[in-house]
Amino acid sequence: MCERAHHHRFPARPPACLRVCVPSNRTTGQSKRTMSLSLVLRQRSAATAAVSARGLHLMRPGSVYNFRLAAVAAAAPQQSHHPGAAGAVASSPINHHHRTFLTMACAQQQQRCVSIDNINPAIKTMEYAVRGPLVIRAGVIEKELEEGVKKPFKEVIRANIGDCHAMGQPPITFIRQVLGLVSYPPLFDDPTIPADAKQRARAILDGCKGGSVGSYSDSAGIEVIRRHAAEYIQRRDGGIPADWQNIILSAGASGGIKVLMALLRCPIDGKKPGVMIPIPQYPLYSATIAEFDMEQIGYYLDEANKWGLDIAELERSLAEARKVSAPRILVVINPGNPTGQVLSRANIEDIIKFAHRERLVLFADEVYQDNVYEPGSQFHSFKKVMMEMGAPYSGMELCSFMSCSKGYMGECGIRGGYAEIVNLCPDVRTMLLKCISAQLCPTTAGQAVLDCVVHPPQKGEPSYERFEREKAAVLESLRERAELVARTFNSIEGFTCNPVQGAMYAFPQIRLPPKALEAAKKEGKPADTFYAFQLLEETGICIVPGSGFGQRPGTYHFRTTILPQPEKLKEMLGLFKSFHEKFLQKYK
Amino acid sequence: MCERAHHHRFPARPPACLRVCVPSNRTTGQSKRTMSLSLVLRQRSAATAAVSARGLHLMRPGSVYNFRLAAVAAAAPQQSHHPGAAGAVASSPINHHHRTFLTMACAQQQQRCVSIDNINPAIKTMEYAVRGPLVIRAGVIEKELEEGVKKPFKEVIRANIGDCHAMGQPPITFIRQVLGLVSYPPLFDDPTIPADAKQRARAILDGCKGGSVGSYSDSAGIEVIRRHAAEYIQRRDGGIPADWQNIILSAGASGGIKVLMALLRCPIDGKKPGVMIPIPQYPLYSATIAEFDMEQIGYYLDEANKWGLDIAELERSLAEARKVSAPRILVVINPGNPTGQVLSRANIEDIIKFAHRERLVLFADEVYQDNVYEPGSQFHSFKKVMMEMGAPYSGMELCSFMSCSKGYMGECGIRGGYAEIVNLCPDVRTMLLKCISAQLCPTTAGQAVLDCVVHPPQKGEPSYERFEREKAAVLESLRERAELVARTFNSIEGFTCNPVQGAMYAFPQIRLPPKALEAAKKEGKPADTFYAFQLLEETGICIVPGSGFGQRPGTYHFRTTILPQPEKLKEMLGLFKSFHEKFLQKYK
Repeated sequence: MCERAHHHRFPARPPACLRVCVPSNRTTGQSKRTMSLSLVLRQRSAATAAVSARGLHLMRPGSVYNFRLAAVAAAAPQQSHHPGAAGAVASSPINHHHRTFLTMACAQQQQRCVSIDNINPAIKTMEYAVRGPLVIRAGVIEKELEEGVKKPFKEVIRANIGDCHAMGQPPITFIRQVLGLVSYPPLFDDPTIPADAKQRARAILDGCKGGSVGSYSDSAGIEVIRRHAAEYIQRRDGGIPADWQNIILSAGASGGIKVLMALLRCPIDGKKPGVMIPIPQYPLYSATIAEFDMEQIGYYLDEANKWGLDIAELERSLAEARKVSAPRILVVINPGNPTGQVLSRANIEDIIKFAHRERLVLFADEVYQDNVYEPGSQFHSFKKVMMEMGAPYSGMELCSFMSCSKGYMGECGIRGGYAEIVNLCPDVRTMLLKCISAQLCPTTAGQAVLDCVVHPPQKGEPSYERFEREKAAVLESLRERAELVARTFNSIEGFTCNPVQGAMYAFPQIRLPPKALEAAKKEGKPADTFYAFQLLEETGICIVPGSGFGQRPGTYHFRTTILPQPEKLKEMLGLFKSFHEKFLQKYK
Repeated sequence: MCERAHHHRFPARPPACLRVCVPSNRTTGQSKRTMSLSLVLRQRSAATAAVSARGLHLMRPGSVYNFRLAAVAAAAPQQSHHPGAAGAVASSPINHHHRTFLTMACAQQQQRCVSIDNINPAIKTMEYAVRGPLVIRAGVIEKELEEGVKKPFKEVIRANIGDCHAMGQPPITFIRQVLGLVSYPPLFDDPTIPADAKQRARAILDGCKGGSVGSYSDSAGIEVIRRHAAEYIQRRDGGIPADWQNIILSAGASGGIKVLMALLRCPIDGKKPGVMIPIPQYPLYSATIAEFDMEQIGYYLDEANKWGLDIAELERSLAEARKVSAPRILVVINPGNPTGQVLSRANIEDIIKFAHRERLVLFADEVYQDNVYEPGSQFHSFKKVMMEMGAPYSGMELCSFMSCSKGYMGECGIRGGYAEIVNLCPDVRTMLLKCISAQLCPTTAGQAVLDCVVHPPQKGEPSYERFEREKAAVLESLRERAELVARTFNSIEGFTCNPVQGAMYAFPQIRLPPKALEAAKKEGKPADTFYAFQLLEETGICIVPGSGFGQRPGTYHFRTTILPQPEKLKEMLGLFKSFHEKFLQKYK
């Protein structure tokens, strides 16, 4: 589409302003055509310049971006411009310290039906920091390293996302045997695969129409797997009943969370439905709230109290939110992401009472239920606590979410998970089932993996010992890494880190010197993002700045996973420490 | 939650009205409790009664439904009622011809936060007939047959959904070998698996972080698979270039369709964004339009012209829609679902010109591109035609969707697919990529299956012949069945069926006798639904009535798949024919 009309090459020294030249429109006869400009970025610093100029955060060197005339004009209101006419000139400021070539191609193209101005505004608003600009930059650096570009490090360490296998964690053998069997049934003849794996796979295939995982399942999932999930929950919760019809299988936990948020997305008395989420939070929530145009109601976790939930803070946040919205959902992430806390039973009881008092539907994000490390910490499911509290709490609506992507299995890519939805009005459940029916079904591969998680080998079965051994090895190693990370961070000047009681992340607070804050401000970046970019460029470590999760104003944090394998993790922490010392030196 | 307070049993003859008795509220001290009633339906006809009374279409005998006091009261405004007080009575009319028992349990329960009145109204509106009430009833019948209930048939024939493996179609060996290998890498040591399958699996694993399908892929999919998809499209389209960066992998085609509709969901000048869809259509579209609160703009396919698209009809439909909405998207399904047509190249050119003239974004649903049967029919991709037409058409925005669920592979349950998006403004593409990033990634299992589809064994490779043989066998058998189904339907009195040129469905028109129309009206059902329910109850054949897809008022159709295996299909068509004769006899 983009025909280049002509080119300008700027001198090696950067121009004080970005000049964009619009060529004459040779097809002025066609009213449906307008002018547009494209810009080839040769160096990263040019991207930065363009970022400041346009407020867009996703530009990459080597890529072509179209500049709509309006945007360029807006950046340089002092310049005259004539859309579609020859010689229009627009400019926007560029920082003097950028050393860069800018090659500009003035391209002329047909007007498109879809532009940044007429797409879903909610999608423009939403952000998902775990895969944001830092991560995109990390991908570019990886490509540069492959191409032989010299860097002060040899590889990027992706500590930005809880992606277990990517960081070298091996899959659990039993899970992959079952997945292999249902995918490729001739494996049933393989004598090296134990009988219990074959029995599990057989039961799954018997639950599939036509005996194939290639057929659609019920939208809520294969019945036998839903039953196993209910039995798993019942065992986990000391015998408190779970109804398999309350279980909806999903593509990871995200699929379930999104569909239940969609269900509750209804204005109440003309007010936007509100969702209470912790700050800091896992950005799936903020992204979905933005996408669904619901009201985000942040409540601060109590950093001084191991990231616990303070009921007074919940009340403050709710009272403020009620002025402008209709709060409906209370999201609690336990064990916490990005904060790593494991809630005490007393804290959970108080939260349940609060939700009951305020008529909120509880969303318990419990995907890290297997990831509890700190001695004395224990996972209590919201379902169990609520049921043990008795009436009226035992009648409350609760959605609890679980995933195959975390725990000891870490099967992120396969996409398996479930939602347990208790005490939902049957009419509403009917609507929920109808709503998921148009999505056909969650992947049967994810369902098969979930079956292994909720129906693992039992004592006496041939795979039992190996399964338990592999599971324990992963969890024990994570426990050691959790402790190592928190301890190391606390040994660095200016860092304070709560214990990583559970989940897969540390979320330390960093105190940054005033000069660093100033420098960040000059670059138009939050100070933690500024810090994280420097860390990435100098050490290859990719973390997510606290601003991606939310934090109290004036404080700075970052999230790192504890997932690099032990040796790599030690290396990473060493790099981190020396980077931070240099950083303090630089901005002291 | 539902404690039964007391029961009433009505006499065998139905009451003229449904009386619901509210017991005294024994917990009046609790202000947050109100009354609610639940009803146990003992027979299907009771469900019908309740449907008329409540306007809900999804009630099933043997299930418990809660009647909120407000709804009951609204149905009987002439009666006084006192929420929470003893002896309140409400009533609603029931048709006299229902012969039924109603057992009512008046239950008292805690008021819930979520009710049918405060959920997402779009979800209440949406329908997805392919998994609607008939299909739910078919599931109940299957359970009854298992329990030994006597029926005039031995099994349900599920001709309602394009679920290939469920109907006995075998998976393609090569696909399952690759899926087995990536799931369970020890299979690489299996000497019975050919080298090309291992090479494909190795390339996929090399594209996965940490070499495991258990790691997250990029949100748009694994790069090597996106590249293979682009190469596949380029081969398919006779060398017209495809850019792998325009390919987004998705969970089936549905995932891609939904995210692109979400992207374009933006009011224009205060008007709802509109989506033009064929009538009849695949109900994913109507369901998604309802869920996203967009405007559905139906254009009728031309039944007299083999379900082709008539440009005058497109213009009529668009002109009407423009009065109330802002049409943005034109959906074309080719080959057609449920209508089985394969569009001619001339027809596609006219459609492209229309979309260009009217500034609509083309959504080409091309998931049945391998399913073309009629001699002389040929699949032409919208991309190819558009590019060959040259400027200005070659610059139009186009989204084309493909799936692993159809074709010769029929891997519905695994969930693989892609969207190719051409000529999208780069800024908008950035937003699209951001939007899908919060969904993390499509299942890697589906991506692996898609890789086999877009990168099948090549001539000279060890799996080539077997792959081609298996593929040809499936497609040849489908071709025979397509011909058989259309021919048989056309031999039945009152049926007219267009040739099944492609896809997996026949969509015959049936002329129903006036007495049948009257009987249907009395039952409050569309006449084709009335017919389909009788067919199901008497023969076990489950089809989807035309009203689930849309049809011209006063005409009646149904959709059946051509997927039952040949012997089963012949049996089904025989049952169909004799049922229809009896039906005509009954209502003549």
